[in-house]
Amino acid sequence: MNRLDQQMKFILEADKLKQVFRQSYLSDESRKENDAEHSWHLAVMAYLLQEYADEPVDLSRVMIMVLMHDMVEIYAGDTYAYDTENQSTQRAREEEAAERLYSLLPKDQKETLLAIFREFEEAKTPEARFANTLDNLEPLMLNDAVNGRGWREHQIRYEQVRSRQEKKLVGSKVLKEYAKELVEKNVKKGNILDS
Amino acid sequence: MNRLDQQMKFILEADKLKQVFRQSYLSDESRKENDAEHSWHLAVMAYLLQEYADEPVDLSRVMIMVLMHDMVEIYAGDTYAYDTENQSTQRAREEEAAERLYSLLPKDQKETLLAIFREFEEAKTPEARFANTLDNLEPLMLNDAVNGRGWREHQIRYEQVRSRQEKKLVGSKVLKEYAKELVEKNVKKGNILDS
Repeated sequence: MNRLDQQMKFILEADKLKQVFRQSYLSDESRKENDAEHSWHLAVMAYLLQEYADEPVDLSRVMIMVLMHDMVEIYAGDTYAYDTENQSTQRAREEEAAERLYSLLPKDQKETLLAIFREFEEAKTPEARFANTLDNLEPLMLNDAVNGRGWREHQIRYEQVRSRQEKKLVGSKVLKEYAKELVEKNVKKGNILDS
Repeated sequence: MNRLDQQMKFILEADKLKQVFRQSYLSDESRKENDAEHSWHLAVMAYLLQEYADEPVDLSRVMIMVLMHDMVEIYAGDTYAYDTENQSTQRAREEEAAERLYSLLPKDQKETLLAIFREFEEAKTPEARFANTLDNLEPLMLNDAVNGRGWREHQIRYEQVRSRQEKKLVGSKVLKEYAKELVEKNVKKGNILDS
């Protein structure tokens, strides 16, 4: 298969991300959000909120990272942020899925995308830290917009949210503060259980 | 309202793009595609196919452009590529929508995004030409994947597709050739009417 055919085959396979559903409701509560929409929203946020990154970031790298960070869920499925049972196997399942998925691409692009996926997971570079911050903030914003419906349905406790935030909100002090205030507001409203 | 609150208000309003539906079916034919998913797919394509742009492009600018190019449809609605009646009023409706939507943002970001939106529409820079090429190729790929269902339902003629392509496939000779072959294959199969 020639290079362009390989790339187009991957791009068509990527279409399946539109059918991987998350736990967040859309702001109009009509249905849950899918991974492709979520990834789009993060990339828009990366552009608009880049000024709040703690360190200067390469915007196009942040964007590629957030556009691709959930792609492995086409094969590995979505793991809910507060599902500790599935989280224990998540990394291994997703590594396998990444290997399988990116093997559709020419070797150079496969290697680059595997590296970008791992960079996001390890959250050690400024770009990955900022991307993880956005990945935490977006569902928070949506959940707040629907008066905490997602948290209430899963009876999420403050401690769970806080511990997740400590791991994810690592790229922007300003957005971390903003996110914490959103959470506290929802604790006061009883949408998140005070533990 | 402070700067971050304005930005977050816009980001929440942008959530509505997930409910603006297009005429393309997803590759599994389960439903039609929405604008947020479509925009995500174009940004992924921008990254993977950048090597085929006729001129060097600033990737992050192409990505912002494709992520944002349909945002005006939150207020103006989607205009089908082959709906000539609504196309005559499309530009004016979309300019009004852009003004209204981007006014949610701080002035500097509003001005930048209005300029990027117009740049895409005018298709004169290398970035805008490449973005328009992708915007044509993605629904073509999806339509081909479902054996031309969208074209068949709307009884689309070869002449309509070709004239649209002359306007949109302006940023990559390689992708233009690829797209033309896809179309000709679907003319042979009777999915696009030979005029």
